[in-house]
Amino acid sequence: MEYRRIKDQDKDEDSVHDDVESLRGKPHSGSSSNLAALVGNPADRTKWKRKSIVTLSLTVLTSSQAILIVWSKRAGKYEYSVTTANFLVETLKCALSVAALARVWRNEGVTDDNRLSTTWDEVSVYPIPAALYLIKNLLQYYIFAYVDAPGYQILKNFNIISTGVLYRIILKRKLSEIQWAAFVLLCAGCTTAQLNSSSDKVLQTPLQGWVMAIIMALLSGFAGVYTEAIIKKRPSRNINVQNFWLYVFGMIFNAIAIVVQDFDAVMNKGFFHGYSFITVLMILNHALSGIAVSMVMKYADNIVKVYSTSVAMLLTAVVSVFLFGFHLSLAFFLGSTVVSVSVYLHSIGKLQR
Amino acid sequence: MEYRRIKDQDKDEDSVHDDVESLRGKPHSGSSSNLAALVGNPADRTKWKRKSIVTLSLTVLTSSQAILIVWSKRAGKYEYSVTTANFLVETLKCALSVAALARVWRNEGVTDDNRLSTTWDEVSVYPIPAALYLIKNLLQYYIFAYVDAPGYQILKNFNIISTGVLYRIILKRKLSEIQWAAFVLLCAGCTTAQLNSSSDKVLQTPLQGWVMAIIMALLSGFAGVYTEAIIKKRPSRNINVQNFWLYVFGMIFNAIAIVVQDFDAVMNKGFFHGYSFITVLMILNHALSGIAVSMVMKYADNIVKVYSTSVAMLLTAVVSVFLFGFHLSLAFFLGSTVVSVSVYLHSIGKLQR
Repeated sequence: MEYRRIKDQDKDEDSVHDDVESLRGKPHSGSSSNLAALVGNPADRTKWKRKSIVTLSLTVLTSSQAILIVWSKRAGKYEYSVTTANFLVETLKCALSVAALARVWRNEGVTDDNRLSTTWDEVSVYPIPAALYLIKNLLQYYIFAYVDAPGYQILKNFNIISTGVLYRIILKRKLSEIQWAAFVLLCAGCTTAQLNSSSDKVLQTPLQGWVMAIIMALLSGFAGVYTEAIIKKRPSRNINVQNFWLYVFGMIFNAIAIVVQDFDAVMNKGFFHGYSFITVLMILNHALSGIAVSMVMKYADNIVKVYSTSVAMLLTAVVSVFLFGFHLSLAFFLGSTVVSVSVYLHSIGKLQR
Repeated sequence: MEYRRIKDQDKDEDSVHDDVESLRGKPHSGSSSNLAALVGNPADRTKWKRKSIVTLSLTVLTSSQAILIVWSKRAGKYEYSVTTANFLVETLKCALSVAALARVWRNEGVTDDNRLSTTWDEVSVYPIPAALYLIKNLLQYYIFAYVDAPGYQILKNFNIISTGVLYRIILKRKLSEIQWAAFVLLCAGCTTAQLNSSSDKVLQTPLQGWVMAIIMALLSGFAGVYTEAIIKKRPSRNINVQNFWLYVFGMIFNAIAIVVQDFDAVMNKGFFHGYSFITVLMILNHALSGIAVSMVMKYADNIVKVYSTSVAMLLTAVVSVFLFGFHLSLAFFLGSTVVSVSVYLHSIGKLQR
C-alpha cells in the first residue's frame, strides 16, 4: 500500500503538468512519426530512433519498478517514510536534469532554449500537476471506502480509456478507427491479465465507487495529457529545463508533505530511518522512470506511454515467474494475447491512416 | 454431458461434408459480399439480405439451443435416449428439406439443379462427415482422461483458430491482416468470457490432452470447411437437395448408433421413453439450427458461422440473466468487449481489403 502511494505519486507528478493556453489545438511536432519514418530522411530516422529508445527505457524501468516492489514486499522492508523517499526522488530528478544541462551548456553554450532562468509566464503552470495529484491522492483515500485494493487495481484500467479520450479532446490528435479499437482492447486485455478469483467483487462496487473511479481516471488522464501539452508547447525548449521546473515544484510539494505528515517521525528517528539497499534502488528507479515519462511525453505521446506501461505490466509478470516462482493464470495468457494484438493493431492502424 | 453429446453430434454432422476434388482452390461464389454490396446492384443486395437472414437465424437458434439446455438441466429431464433424439433430428431435417423441395418443384418444375436423384459421384462424399464425426466423438471419450468437462469447454475454443487456418489453407480464401487479428481476438474473447474460478486447472493439462484438443479442433475445423466446399461445389444446386443427402446419411448413421448403443433400452422402454415437452423443443431447435448451419455454409462461409455461434454464446449468457437469474462475471464482460471489437474489426477489415 505505502509503496503504491509513492508509485502513483511519482507517476502523477511526472505527468500532470500543462499550460491551459497550450491546450487549444496547437499542432505538436515530433510525435507522429511511424514506421514510414524508417525509410524517410535522416532527421525522421533520428526522431524515430529517439522515440524508440525512450519508449523502451520507460518499459524496462516500469517493469523493474514493479519487480522492486515485489522484492521489497518479500523482504518485508517498509519502515522508511514514504514522504522522504518521494522528496529524494524529486531531488534526484532535479539533480540529474541540472547535470544533463551542465553538459549541454558546456557543449553548446547557453541559449534561449537551454537557459534555466525563465519568465513567470512559463513557470506558472508547472505547479498545476501537483494540485491535480493532490486531488487524486485525496480521492484515493475515499475510494477505499467503496472498493478494496485489488478492486482498485482493476478500476485503474479506466485510465487507459480516459487517456485516449482526453488525448483526442484536449490535444485534438486523431486516432484511426482501428487505433480506437486497439485502445479498447488494451484496456480489456490489461484488466483480463489482472483477473483473479476475487475480481468479481468489483462488480458489486456501489455507484459512488464507480463515479469516483471514473473521476480519478479522468484526473489521471488529464494529468498525462496536460504534461504532454506543456512539454510540447515549446518543442525547441530543452527537455532538461522543462523537467527541472517540473521537479522543483515536486520537491516543494513533497517537502510540505514531509512537514505535514511525517514531521515527528523524521525529527525523532531521522530522515533516513528504515532505508535499505532496496529503498535506494527504488528511489533510483523512480527517478529514472520519472525522467523517462517526461522524455516519452516530449518525443512520443501519451498513447505510447500507456502502451509502454501496459506492456511493462505484462513483462513484470513474466519476469516474476523466473525471479519469484509466480504462476501465470489462464486469464493472464488471454489478456496478454489481447494486449499483443492491440499493439499490433495500433501499429497497423497507424500505417493505414 | 449427454446433452452436450447430442449437440456436438448435430453440429458436426451438419458441418463435415465435402468433396476432396472440390478442395483444390476452386473459387466459390456468393460468399464475399460485404457492406459495399448494399450500394451495389439488386442481385448483390438480395445476396447480402439472404446472408444476413441466415446468419441471424443461426445466431438466434444457437443461443436458444443453449437456453433449452439450461432449462432442461434445471428440469432434470435427461431420461430420454440421446441416439433416438439424434435420429429424430436428422429425420426432421430430411422431412423439412423434402417439404421445401416439394414447394420448389410445384413452383419451378423439376430441373437438373433441384431433382433429388443424383449420381454416385455426387453422393459418395456425403457420408465422409459422418466418419469424421465418429473419429471426433471417439476422441472425445479419451480426452476426458486428461481434461475435465469445463476444461474441455475452454479447449474447444481452439476450433475458432483451426477453422480460420483450414479455411485459408483448404478453401484458399484470404483474410486480411486485420481479420486475422480479429479472429485471434474472437478466440481469446470467447475463452475469457467462459473463465471461472477453476479455469486455471486447464493449464495443468498434460501434453497428450493438448495434442488431442488440437487434433479435435482440426477435425472440427476440417469438418466445417469440408461442408462449405461440398455445398459450394455446385452453387446452382438447390440447397435442399444437398441438405437432403447430408441428412439421409445422418439418419443412417444414427440408426446404426441406436442399434449398437441403445437397442435394449429402446426395445424394453420404447422409442419415446423419457421424452418431454422440452425434449420435443430441443429436437425442433436442433433440426432448425442444423438447417441454418447448412444455409450459412451455402450463402456465407465458415468464418461467418464461427462469429455467429460465438455471439450466440454471449447472447445466451445475457438472456440467462433474465431467465434464470444467472450472474455475469467480470471476465464475461471483458470477453464480450473483446468479441464485440473482434466483430467490428472483422467488418472493418473487409472494407479495407
